[in-house]
Amino acid sequence: MRDVFSDRGRLQGMLDFEAALARAEAAVGLIPAHVVPAIEAACQADLYDPVALAQAIATAGNSAIPLVKSLGRQIAQSDAEAERYVHLGATSQDAMDTGLVLQLRAALALIEADLSALADALAIQAEKHASTVLPGRTWLQHATPVTLGMKLAGTLDALNRHRQRLAELKPRLLCLQFGGAAGTLAALGEQALPVSVALANELQLTLPEQPWHTQRDRIVEVGSVLGLIAGTLGKFGRDLSLLMQTDVGEAFEPSAPGKGGSSTMPHKRNPVSAAVLIGAATRVPGLVSTLFAAMPQEHERSLGLWHAEWETLPEICCLVSGALAQALIVVPDLEVDAERMRANLELTQGLVLAEAVSIALAQRIGRDASHHLVEQCCRRAVAEKRHLRAVLGDDQQVSAQLTAEELDRLLDPAHYLGLAPTWVTRVVDEHRRLGALD
Amino acid sequence: MRDVFSDRGRLQGMLDFEAALARAEAAVGLIPAHVVPAIEAACQADLYDPVALAQAIATAGNSAIPLVKSLGRQIAQSDAEAERYVHLGATSQDAMDTGLVLQLRAALALIEADLSALADALAIQAEKHASTVLPGRTWLQHATPVTLGMKLAGTLDALNRHRQRLAELKPRLLCLQFGGAAGTLAALGEQALPVSVALANELQLTLPEQPWHTQRDRIVEVGSVLGLIAGTLGKFGRDLSLLMQTDVGEAFEPSAPGKGGSSTMPHKRNPVSAAVLIGAATRVPGLVSTLFAAMPQEHERSLGLWHAEWETLPEICCLVSGALAQALIVVPDLEVDAERMRANLELTQGLVLAEAVSIALAQRIGRDASHHLVEQCCRRAVAEKRHLRAVLGDDQQVSAQLTAEELDRLLDPAHYLGLAPTWVTRVVDEHRRLGALD
Amino acid sequence: MRDVFSDRGRLQGMLDFEAALARAEAAVGLIPAHVVPAIEAACQADLYDPVALAQAIATAGNSAIPLVKSLGRQIAQSDAEAERYVHLGATSQDAMDTGLVLQLRAALALIEADLSALADALAIQAEKHASTVLPGRTWLQHATPVTLGMKLAGTLDALNRHRQRLAELKPRLLCLQFGGAAGTLAALGEQALPVSVALANELQLTLPEQPWHTQRDRIVEVGSVLGLIAGTLGKFGRDLSLLMQTDVGEAFEPSAPGKGGSSTMPHKRNPVSAAVLIGAATRVPGLVSTLFAAMPQEHERSLGLWHAEWETLPEICCLVSGALAQALIVVPDLEVDAERMRANLELTQGLVLAEAVSIALAQRIGRDASHHLVEQCCRRAVAEKRHLRAVLGDDQQVSAQLTAEELDRLLDPAHYLGLAPTWVTRVVDEHRRLGALD
Amino acid sequence: MRDVFSDRGRLQGMLDFEAALARAEAAVGLIPAHVVPAIEAACQADLYDPVALAQAIATAGNSAIPLVKSLGRQIAQSDAEAERYVHLGATSQDAMDTGLVLQLRAALALIEADLSALADALAIQAEKHASTVLPGRTWLQHATPVTLGMKLAGTLDALNRHRQRLAELKPRLLCLQFGGAAGTLAALGEQALPVSVALANELQLTLPEQPWHTQRDRIVEVGSVLGLIAGTLGKFGRDLSLLMQTDVGEAFEPSAPGKGGSSTMPHKRNPVSAAVLIGAATRVPGLVSTLFAAMPQEHERSLGLWHAEWETLPEICCLVSGALAQALIVVPDLEVDAERMRANLELTQGLVLAEAVSIALAQRIGRDASHHLVEQCCRRAVAEKRHLRAVLGDDQQVSAQLTAEELDRLLDPAHYLGLAPTWVTRVVDEHRRLGALD
Repeated sequence: MRDVFSDRGRLQGMLDFEAALARAEAAVGLIPAHVVPAIEAACQADLYDPVALAQAIATAGNSAIPLVKSLGRQIAQSDAEAERYVHLGATSQDAMDTGLVLQLRAALALIEADLSALADALAIQAEKHASTVLPGRTWLQHATPVTLGMKLAGTLDALNRHRQRLAELKPRLLCLQFGGAAGTLAALGEQALPVSVALANELQLTLPEQPWHTQRDRIVEVGSVLGLIAGTLGKFGRDLSLLMQTDVGEAFEPSAPGKGGSSTMPHKRNPVSAAVLIGAATRVPGLVSTLFAAMPQEHERSLGLWHAEWETLPEICCLVSGALAQALIVVPDLEVDAERMRANLELTQGLVLAEAVSIALAQRIGRDASHHLVEQCCRRAVAEKRHLRAVLGDDQQVSAQLTAEELDRLLDPAHYLGLAPTWVTRVVDEHRRLGALD
Repeated sequence: MRDVFSDRGRLQGMLDFEAALARAEAAVGLIPAHVVPAIEAACQADLYDPVALAQAIATAGNSAIPLVKSLGRQIAQSDAEAERYVHLGATSQDAMDTGLVLQLRAALALIEADLSALADALAIQAEKHASTVLPGRTWLQHATPVTLGMKLAGTLDALNRHRQRLAELKPRLLCLQFGGAAGTLAALGEQALPVSVALANELQLTLPEQPWHTQRDRIVEVGSVLGLIAGTLGKFGRDLSLLMQTDVGEAFEPSAPGKGGSSTMPHKRNPVSAAVLIGAATRVPGLVSTLFAAMPQEHERSLGLWHAEWETLPEICCLVSGALAQALIVVPDLEVDAERMRANLELTQGLVLAEAVSIALAQRIGRDASHHLVEQCCRRAVAEKRHLRAVLGDDQQVSAQLTAEELDRLLDPAHYLGLAPTWVTRVVDEHRRLGALD
Repeated sequence: MRDVFSDRGRLQGMLDFEAALARAEAAVGLIPAHVVPAIEAACQADLYDPVALAQAIATAGNSAIPLVKSLGRQIAQSDAEAERYVHLGATSQDAMDTGLVLQLRAALALIEADLSALADALAIQAEKHASTVLPGRTWLQHATPVTLGMKLAGTLDALNRHRQRLAELKPRLLCLQFGGAAGTLAALGEQALPVSVALANELQLTLPEQPWHTQRDRIVEVGSVLGLIAGTLGKFGRDLSLLMQTDVGEAFEPSAPGKGGSSTMPHKRNPVSAAVLIGAATRVPGLVSTLFAAMPQEHERSLGLWHAEWETLPEICCLVSGALAQALIVVPDLEVDAERMRANLELTQGLVLAEAVSIALAQRIGRDASHHLVEQCCRRAVAEKRHLRAVLGDDQQVSAQLTAEELDRLLDPAHYLGLAPTWVTRVVDEHRRLGALD
Repeated sequence: MRDVFSDRGRLQGMLDFEAALARAEAAVGLIPAHVVPAIEAACQADLYDPVALAQAIATAGNSAIPLVKSLGRQIAQSDAEAERYVHLGATSQDAMDTGLVLQLRAALALIEADLSALADALAIQAEKHASTVLPGRTWLQHATPVTLGMKLAGTLDALNRHRQRLAELKPRLLCLQFGGAAGTLAALGEQALPVSVALANELQLTLPEQPWHTQRDRIVEVGSVLGLIAGTLGKFGRDLSLLMQTDVGEAFEPSAPGKGGSSTMPHKRNPVSAAVLIGAATRVPGLVSTLFAAMPQEHERSLGLWHAEWETLPEICCLVSGALAQALIVVPDLEVDAERMRANLELTQGLVLAEAVSIALAQRIGRDASHHLVEQCCRRAVAEKRHLRAVLGDDQQVSAQLTAEELDRLLDPAHYLGLAPTWVTRVVDEHRRLGALD
């Protein structure tokens, strides 16, 4: 991903535009066909010095102006006539925006591949742990039991949606920007539309209804969807870091030599991958807000707002790509301590199953009465440091409604998983449907 | 929109959930059918005191707990048995999130209606002004001519995409949240899935693959797409405010009594609607970033992050709705001063058509030579405060390539509109296609 | 705080400006002294209908224009002559910005009082728990021991800095905005400066070097410092929620009837106050970014950017105030389970004191060798589920360097608190110094 | 600035910490004095391969761990004994945070120098143009006249405040972070405080009341104040871009070869510097919000939130530094077209002086009557396309109150500058006071 958005990657995106423009203009007869090879030959990023260009960019105000000048000089060396026909009718933003779209096409291919691989890995783990019981935690307090598979399927479910979102936005995003000086392509006269059609064709991009130089929603949309991915992975990393706590110890990132050590505490194994996931989810919201803030671009080309996009969107792509890479390290080799999970379920001495009892009682003595009664038993269990089963068994009101056998069953986590395994099946099935569509 | 997201609107959303839950549970035989009417009767927001509830919410930590308590008391007044069966198996977040989805369904209906009306108005104006010439402006400098219709079609084009985005996200957004204490619905035993199906059906919502209490991408996605709409309207408002400048005077918000006056300067007509559009586009990015930042919600229910959504998303809805309302005031009665537009085109004494000349020359003497020659003529025209046509006519190098007639034609804006009218047609056609699909 | 920023509060701020302006203009002889009482009498917020004003504001574009009109009508009822002299030479923004400064003065007084009370409470608790040992946690892994007092003193230390920041910014913030139509006060002729001086005096505000209608750094600065407070409280809330985890159970919010209960799980005690703290810290960053984004306000009055401040800064004030209120509930009655803290320290069977051993060994066999050796012992302890003390005692390389007595001492947390109590003393001393300065 | 925050700059910051730590520990006798030179000799960034370190950082989770390892190896080559004593008692974050503080000290020195130079340049220009009249513009509409000097002094006034803010925050920011594994420095035993004092002394940093590894307000504060600077410069850039509009043409960035040209429009001179200023002001708010969002760092070391700061704060420093550099290009050589300013003042045919008339009349016929009367005359002037002076002269109600001479004087902008020159003097005086304090 750093390659896609390197200086070289950006140059090549613009050069691909210039080469395709020459081909398109030759195809419709606007420029002579024989100058195309010279132009194409010069459209190789390696021919240009990114450092020298960077300096010229600072003065010129954008990256296309100095590049087009260098490109012209490069072409002129081999074919002076060809130089006359390069960049014909285009403006800087055409080269930069279309070049960016080409970079984004490559970036999305990488991200979709990673999403797909991560989804596969999550599906495997979710099924494997469909019935691995651990405490559900709400407000960071133990609630009723859930399964690890259901937690992983939650992430998979979100990834399924993200893949669908990317599929939906691509037709909007992967389209040509070609408008010339102010968007009318007036410089190309009668050939403007044919050249546009041919150019879009050359680049395998859609021809939009109208150039979009100052309508930036396509750009911001992809940033937002990438932001959603970062958020999902951030939630996964947050949960992982909580499960890895010394005080919890239920699941762990796979260890690797030199990974997550401490410079002073030899026993530590820090959740390094989770840190990357959380870090990305912390940085991306501010970057996404920059893209939104940069939308009101003035008239036919903005000053400053467009510029604010240039480093922001690539940064988002790289952060999301880095987070996906870490998730791909973690998920396939996730270490699970199912024994510790069961031990932790006993931490509250039955309280996590209070709901099961409360529900059962509610149907006999009413919701409020039941809630009140079980709440009292829970408080007594806490105060007396006894197991809830024992307290309930001793309570006359409870015993009047529920037998010892009923109580035993109600307080067994394995009998209280509800739809957890079903949710896993549903999500994995959806994942398979999506995979089959690819 | 303020109604949809009022205290009453929020209460009613949750009460609609509770009533539907009772019907669904009765339908599958989990609760007796005869208690349903009493529950439904109590599920009217007007029966509850929002101020008293607000105080209880501050202590309880969310709005569903005190509401469910009040609801129980309300039902118990008429039917003590029915009270036992309310909220059965559900948790606070089920009521709140599903209630929010119901509010969002109403909100999106309003927004889609406004978008549609605004798109219609823009289509009319874009066609009317398809050939109304004004200076294209890039970097806030005059560039080549464009048309007002093309500018308006740019906004319409973005609205077309926004409507498509809303259509795509609705199946993801408009779905049930129902998971019980920790997402497994264990409290409902064997009836969990049938109740879920019936409940989704009752509310006309999709049944998701898995409850989504801490997978917030659905919520953030709708906030993002609303943010895109705010950004598009912000760009429209920004452009409008620039066209309304005393120094430009090309287009104006319709005036109304008391609108946009100054407390001290009686001659002023402030762009009040544009201010609302720009204000919304300035506030929404920060609010959207809050939604993204709140995504990494811990385990099965977050503390703090979920809470951060509660006022943020409604605020976004209200800002976008307010901006749409202002745009609907402006667009249909937009005042256009086409004469001033043409006068402004002459401000640079022909310079805005320098490109036309440059392009024509480039094909005869090469791009760099042409660019250099025309640049020199432009500088001379500026320095000598003469019209570019005159300077070009006097220049020997130019005259050697272009006749007086050619120069005259090249310097007439009406001959240099390029695809501007075509873009309008393409965008309006797409708008009509979308409308026909509705 | 909601009062300060209520509709009434905003109106009164502007009316206080108008009354003071009349007094100031009378004092320098610009308007007759006998009209002042009629103007002052009308400058009571309760005389005005906020709902009617709100509707007029939507059309007028700001809140001062309709208010000044209503004010004029109100005055005219009792004294037609006085009406001529109200708002003389001022513009809407003068009334709104100076009114806002007056509101902020009241808001900061509340916040400073809360900060001071919270600092006192933290100082008491920090000293009380200066030596209450619990596991230090880095990357959410147990590190070496710390004390609860040191953790609380960390928050106190930040509050000390926040109080200093508020003291420093107040001279910049609490200053008059008075510039008339475009900032020159030209309408007041020779009396402009004397009126400005008298007006600042009347309102007990500083006279700035120049009006600041579109230089918004004063406003954004106070928003930022409030944001810092929110961040500090968010960190406190985050830590509290982690300590309250069922799996940790070391410290708790005080319980109260109805506080933090679950609608379905009777045993739960949710960290409701922590949720408020985290919620505020999640919402404020986006709001602060809006203030920064609204800084580039055009020329002598912005459209849209200024408007974006109006609801944003009050929201920040209310969120910070709400967070302070929750912290003031939590800190004085914080429940501490020192026994559980000590038990948790044993969770890793000595690993948290590995550093102590590592350091001791490093001075004898070198840093890398020691680190490597202790790391191996730690891994062995983990693999064999034995206490580190036992593993170290069995290791020949270790025994060659450290006696059994040395090992016992090195593995006792109470001997490894380092400067924890000293940090508490230093911070509390600084707190007292600040208090003495007040 | 890019140097300060380069890989090399970051390494050197950490190495400076390690060298100073060795000196401090030797000074208090904790380590032998003769090992210090070997450690110091190895603390040169050029000895290390940033690429190899970068790879190790990705696995280790932070930049200090691999650096300390490499440093140890480097020292061991020359002095095996010395290697035992490096980094003694410190943790990664100590090196990284203190290194960052050292980088920030260098960065602030650069920024303060630029601020000072820019303030000097603004003071010169503000005084030079203290009476250069141009239209004041509110809501982008012409309001009453102002002067260019007053506009520039507004920016200078804000810079004065920023310099004061930096001076105030430096004592808070420029302080040591040194806490060891979890903040207690337990590993240093009795020597912990003496080493801390000596280390702070070595680095010329303040010793804080307590280490601040997870209290990040110092870091966020400097980011915020830099954000204020970006905002002020963004406002300057925004105004500049508006004044440079082809339709306004009142002030211009100095031109330079190759600066701001267009790839297709040879006549254009784009506001390239303004774009940098606006771009920075657009990007910084999102970055600042990331810093705020990263404040709730868990316990004694965060995972993910701390990491989110690493690239964000340097990026803010570089953006502000780049914006200052552009402002320093623009201000000293700002091109001013005073003639065009006066011509633009006449665009509204006297309307910009309507207030002068309105105020004069208000004192004779009352505010509302006067406002209404002048408003009518303004509308008539607009409708009839006549100069306001003529319309007023023809109006009987006006003539009854104001003589022709009075009207002439009221409609001359040069008589309506109010305090504009005074504001310039006040701000420049304050600037000089600040300069004298340096």
